[in-house]
Amino acid sequence: MDVYSILEKVMAQKPLVHHLTNWVTIYDCANIVKVLGASPVMAHAREESGDMAGLASSLVLNIGTLTPEFIESMKIAAKSANKKGIPVVLDVCGAGATKLRDDKSFELLDQVKIDVIKGNASEIARIAGENVKTKGVDSVEVEKNLIELARHLAGERNATVVITGKEDIVADKTRYFIVKNGHEMMMHVVGTGCMAASVIGTFSAVHKNLAEAAASALSVYGIAAELAAKESKGPATFKEKLFDNIYRLNKETVERMKKVE
Amino acid sequence: MDVYSILEKVMAQKPLVHHLTNWVTIYDCANIVKVLGASPVMAHAREESGDMAGLASSLVLNIGTLTPEFIESMKIAAKSANKKGIPVVLDVCGAGATKLRDDKSFELLDQVKIDVIKGNASEIARIAGENVKTKGVDSVEVEKNLIELARHLAGERNATVVITGKEDIVADKTRYFIVKNGHEMMMHVVGTGCMAASVIGTFSAVHKNLAEAAASALSVYGIAAELAAKESKGPATFKEKLFDNIYRLNKETVERMKKVE
Amino acid sequence: MDVYSILEKVMAQKPLVHHLTNWVTIYDCANIVKVLGASPVMAHAREESGDMAGLASSLVLNIGTLTPEFIESMKIAAKSANKKGIPVVLDVCGAGATKLRDDKSFELLDQVKIDVIKGNASEIARIAGENVKTKGVDSVEVEKNLIELARHLAGERNATVVITGKEDIVADKTRYFIVKNGHEMMMHVVGTGCMAASVIGTFSAVHKNLAEAAASALSVYGIAAELAAKESKGPATFKEKLFDNIYRLNKETVERMKKVE
Repeated sequence: MDVYSILEKVMAQKPLVHHLTNWVTIYDCANIVKVLGASPVMAHAREESGDMAGLASSLVLNIGTLTPEFIESMKIAAKSANKKGIPVVLDVCGAGATKLRDDKSFELLDQVKIDVIKGNASEIARIAGENVKTKGVDSVEVEKNLIELARHLAGERNATVVITGKEDIVADKTRYFIVKNGHEMMMHVVGTGCMAASVIGTFSAVHKNLAEAAASALSVYGIAAELAAKESKGPATFKEKLFDNIYRLNKETVERMKKVE
Repeated sequence: MDVYSILEKVMAQKPLVHHLTNWVTIYDCANIVKVLGASPVMAHAREESGDMAGLASSLVLNIGTLTPEFIESMKIAAKSANKKGIPVVLDVCGAGATKLRDDKSFELLDQVKIDVIKGNASEIARIAGENVKTKGVDSVEVEKNLIELARHLAGERNATVVITGKEDIVADKTRYFIVKNGHEMMMHVVGTGCMAASVIGTFSAVHKNLAEAAASALSVYGIAAELAAKESKGPATFKEKLFDNIYRLNKETVERMKKVE
Repeated sequence: MDVYSILEKVMAQKPLVHHLTNWVTIYDCANIVKVLGASPVMAHAREESGDMAGLASSLVLNIGTLTPEFIESMKIAAKSANKKGIPVVLDVCGAGATKLRDDKSFELLDQVKIDVIKGNASEIARIAGENVKTKGVDSVEVEKNLIELARHLAGERNATVVITGKEDIVADKTRYFIVKNGHEMMMHVVGTGCMAASVIGTFSAVHKNLAEAAASALSVYGIAAELAAKESKGPATFKEKLFDNIYRLNKETVERMKKVE
């Protein structure tokens, strides 16, 4: 898969990536889109979320600090995105922790077209119908074959499914990828999961095959993390270097380091 | 213009700068005020936004993640500021992108006294009545003489008008400044535009002539950016060094580097 | 007091620390919990704040950007925490600045059980009934013996009371600690006060004696700040190094540097 060519399209087309996301990592989600060379926007008012999605090339939803009203704005944005035919990425952040998160995740999946469903192992297991209990927004161990889980959910929801973890899994109805880029330090800083969804949203804005877009996004993101880890002395310098390294990525680095199967 | 003397007044008086701003860059807006030596506060509840403005020396409004309810709190704060006679800065973030942003920008300009109107080229063009379409919160090219545009709007709204860009324009009814400080790296990191409004708000809190205050603010901010760029390897180290360099600014550096015409 | 043993328990037990906090420093509050080795979660919807507190090992409340509706969600979360018997930390951020902040602080203290009351000198003085006027969220001088103030409030509210400042004071009904760790640079960056509450919340999650937990938390946090200051050139590098140094703390460093009396 030509991972770098998708990043090149991002830099050339500078797509507008609309977000309705959580209040914890909202800056990081915007900034990762910016350092990729694209254009982030965050607009959550129900009075404009549909209009803004109408200007955008993709839409990223994240339920990390959801309220019922916020979910209604997400639906308005997603319906506008569906109508325009741009991809919608949903990060089911914290699914499996509370009834509200489960209910609203299913509501979104049932009422609008979600093109990419993304979460950690216990979040995706919950969305696939398993009886697991997520620890807040952190994953717990899941006693299942995760590739099977992703493929099953992809078929059921007619979507691309992404499970992030030590190795990331990306599956659609017909095939799957394993992305082995990334670094353990990503687990020690808040926001790396949310940013992954934004990178996927950005790549999805310029590349029609969403499984390829998502796998390439995670590879590129993971490569930058590997480079950042070499320059850092802890989680905060790591995060700073992660942004710098995404900004500095080039063809040689990406082609040499990519680990997508 | 004695740019440094205004910064000195900020450090000596430590003004309280009240914000009703967006949820993406709210931390950066607070922190830039803090590293300047002043005191930021962010209070958006309608039940206290007026009281807090009554304690403050200036008010910064930013519609980046507006809702109709949030705009109502802004009006309460602005009316309190108007009554107290402290300056009100409005960042028309994303004007030209959606109807909601246009409508609410005009509503604020019509219903309260705005002392400084600040935006990028396409945002200000929209507020001046031009038919431009902003790309989310990022500027698009405007086929107009921007200095004329700023002066016209300044006269029409009886306000100081700031257009940020490669060169910043600051105009009031009687004169204008061009600020040539700054660095290209500011375009590659989220929040530099919002922070500019906060720096302007901070300088406006201690210096009565608002065109001078705004031009000095942008010069000082741009000088710190030029210094930061020399120490950075990408947008994230740049942003960190920007804060450090603002904190470390001194008379010699500011006087030597200022480029205000 | 065996400060390090409490940090060791945090790293071993990885408690879930639930927050309803302000929108300015929410990321930093989450991230400081994460780099300590614990698990932060931020969930403010009234429909889930009680459920999430039911999963957690402690609850941190911060009124920095309060609204009346947000305070209602805090009460739901606190009642759930009280029922479960987990500690509740309240940061009375900005008490003394506006009537809303005073009223809502007292409402929380009267209607739910708050186990740790934390603020700067003027905030705590206000909560203890003194007639002081806080400058936004920054402290003003208080003409009182702060140790007496803390002990009095601790007795009155049957809680542990924390006053942060150049030296931090921690008091309960029977004794008090003075924590002399920390660094002046903490005053020049937004969020260090809010993060202190999150560190206290994290330590309180694993150690029953809350005065010991709070004093240990502030010592550990201050030690990391002292180490960070040595590596930094300004407030932004300081903050980055603060996170890195918390992540890297070890027994030798903590035991050698702790200054708790």
